[in-house]
Amino acid sequence: MKIKFLLLAALFFAAGSARAQVAATYQLTLEGAQKVMDAAVTYAKANQSPGGSIAVVDAGGHLLLFERLDGSFPASATVAIEKARTAALFKFESKKLEDAINGGRDALITVGFTFLQGGVPVLYNGQVVGAIGVSGAKSADQDREIATAGAAVQLQ
Amino acid sequence: MKIKFLLLAALFFAAGSARAQVAATYQLTLEGAQKVMDAAVTYAKANQSPGGSIAVVDAGGHLLLFERLDGSFPASATVAIEKARTAALFKFESKKLEDAINGGRDALITVGFTFLQGGVPVLYNGQVVGAIGVSGAKSADQDREIATAGAAVQLQ
Amino acid sequence: MKIKFLLLAALFFAAGSARAQVAATYQLTLEGAQKVMDAAVTYAKANQSPGGSIAVVDAGGHLLLFERLDGSFPASATVAIEKARTAALFKFESKKLEDAINGGRDALITVGFTFLQGGVPVLYNGQVVGAIGVSGAKSADQDREIATAGAAVQLQ
Amino acid sequence: MKIKFLLLAALFFAAGSARAQVAATYQLTLEGAQKVMDAAVTYAKANQSPGGSIAVVDAGGHLLLFERLDGSFPASATVAIEKARTAALFKFESKKLEDAINGGRDALITVGFTFLQGGVPVLYNGQVVGAIGVSGAKSADQDREIATAGAAVQLQ
Repeated sequence: MKIKFLLLAALFFAAGSARAQVAATYQLTLEGAQKVMDAAVTYAKANQSPGGSIAVVDAGGHLLLFERLDGSFPASATVAIEKARTAALFKFESKKLEDAINGGRDALITVGFTFLQGGVPVLYNGQVVGAIGVSGAKSADQDREIATAGAAVQLQ
Repeated sequence: MKIKFLLLAALFFAAGSARAQVAATYQLTLEGAQKVMDAAVTYAKANQSPGGSIAVVDAGGHLLLFERLDGSFPASATVAIEKARTAALFKFESKKLEDAINGGRDALITVGFTFLQGGVPVLYNGQVVGAIGVSGAKSADQDREIATAGAAVQLQ
Repeated sequence: MKIKFLLLAALFFAAGSARAQVAATYQLTLEGAQKVMDAAVTYAKANQSPGGSIAVVDAGGHLLLFERLDGSFPASATVAIEKARTAALFKFESKKLEDAINGGRDALITVGFTFLQGGVPVLYNGQVVGAIGVSGAKSADQDREIATAGAAVQLQ
Repeated sequence: MKIKFLLLAALFFAAGSARAQVAATYQLTLEGAQKVMDAAVTYAKANQSPGGSIAVVDAGGHLLLFERLDGSFPASATVAIEKARTAALFKFESKKLEDAINGGRDALITVGFTFLQGGVPVLYNGQVVGAIGVSGAKSADQDREIATAGAAVQLQ
């Protein structure tokens, strides 16, 4: 009992008080990125996606894992990576930013990031540990569905 | 029997199976790019185009052949190349992307490519082997007509 | 016999005469890119590489497949992709360009591509069908060894 | 026995197994960045630095804290941030890269990062949790000394 408490206390301390100089967190490993990728590819195939590029980045927006399914247009590679980067660095779905632009806030274009739906953060324990970006599926909506399927995996 | 098998094998090889490590394809030669260019220039002259830049790129979006007709404004050079690049790397007409933006999906601007009509893929055997881009004709519509005339050639 | 000749003739025609408007070629599929990647990763692990990023691009320099092994520094992602792109678009090993710079032709730096060893073209049938780039291994030499191991696979 | 097992399990979890999908790590908080900054400023003042810019970034290379001391030249702001970014994203001192270039590997210039001494990673528990970059002190050597003093703090 006491041990359980001590471990809990240690974890709590590690998780960081308001004045901590470092905060405990998690980062996506290649294994985790592969799990996200697999879920996305499985969804894409089950839903007749004609192809597409899928990118998984870490919390800093740097690429961890990528694949371009046969038949996908070449530009989808860059677009998928940029969507993932947007979701990681803004810590929410890129769709939120696309919707804001299409809804009238055109000035967001000046930020210089790719603000198109299809980028979704990957969470663990409530923290953003990376993001997935998809481009080149049947439609922009399907890009997002595939990314959402990838981000929905339970990481361990 | 053996012949049928060989033909089948050849077809199978040409089409590329799901597990093939390479897929047979075609690429535009300079000779082919010249044929595309000639058809575009012929159309431009027959339709009183005041000039314009015409660019032909390969399937990877890299320039193969380029001409700026006398009287064309200097910026048309870059714009024509970028339109061709867009059509090659997205594997469809750049007009589709321009129309989406003008129709309200302003967020596409953030992708950073030139999404203006006048970029058209060049096909052979159903595959994109390159693209043509035109800028600086009488109007944006004519840019596209010239590009379309170029892309319509039958390559051999 | 006659059939064999006809098939040969068909292949010859497809391969393109000097005046052909299209030339038959091959492109790396995702399956082929995976084979290149697997050979590179196997070599890296067998030779105690501490990690590294591995990128496979198509002949146009566009990303097909990528992975960053755990422990690799984040910048290795971009560097690996750029090395692969250099090898694909120049059609030879990036080391040749690095050596030229280090040997005194500093002006090559102005080209704007990443000219560091570790980018190697992937060939099929004597044609460049893509390239592999590696960054973040034990040393620059090992980056190149891993890339070379990847590019050495026999594609089918 | 059970306790030993639990502790072992906790350690194992913290270190991350080869097949874990997430790895436990730490990130620099603003409080921690401030401690790094304070140590750097203290060193700069104690050593008659005429000023300078000091930047602290997280492990992904994104800015956390920045100060330009009075009298520092404006460009030092950008240079300090870039040095810190280099140290974070390459996971070692930027001096190592500057030395390689000055020692003859000029090709490293093509990577496009700022490879100048004065960028130093900040570690916690053996992991890179961020970096500090300094520009505009008395000399390039002093830039590095100040950055090293900042990175030497014991974070908690």
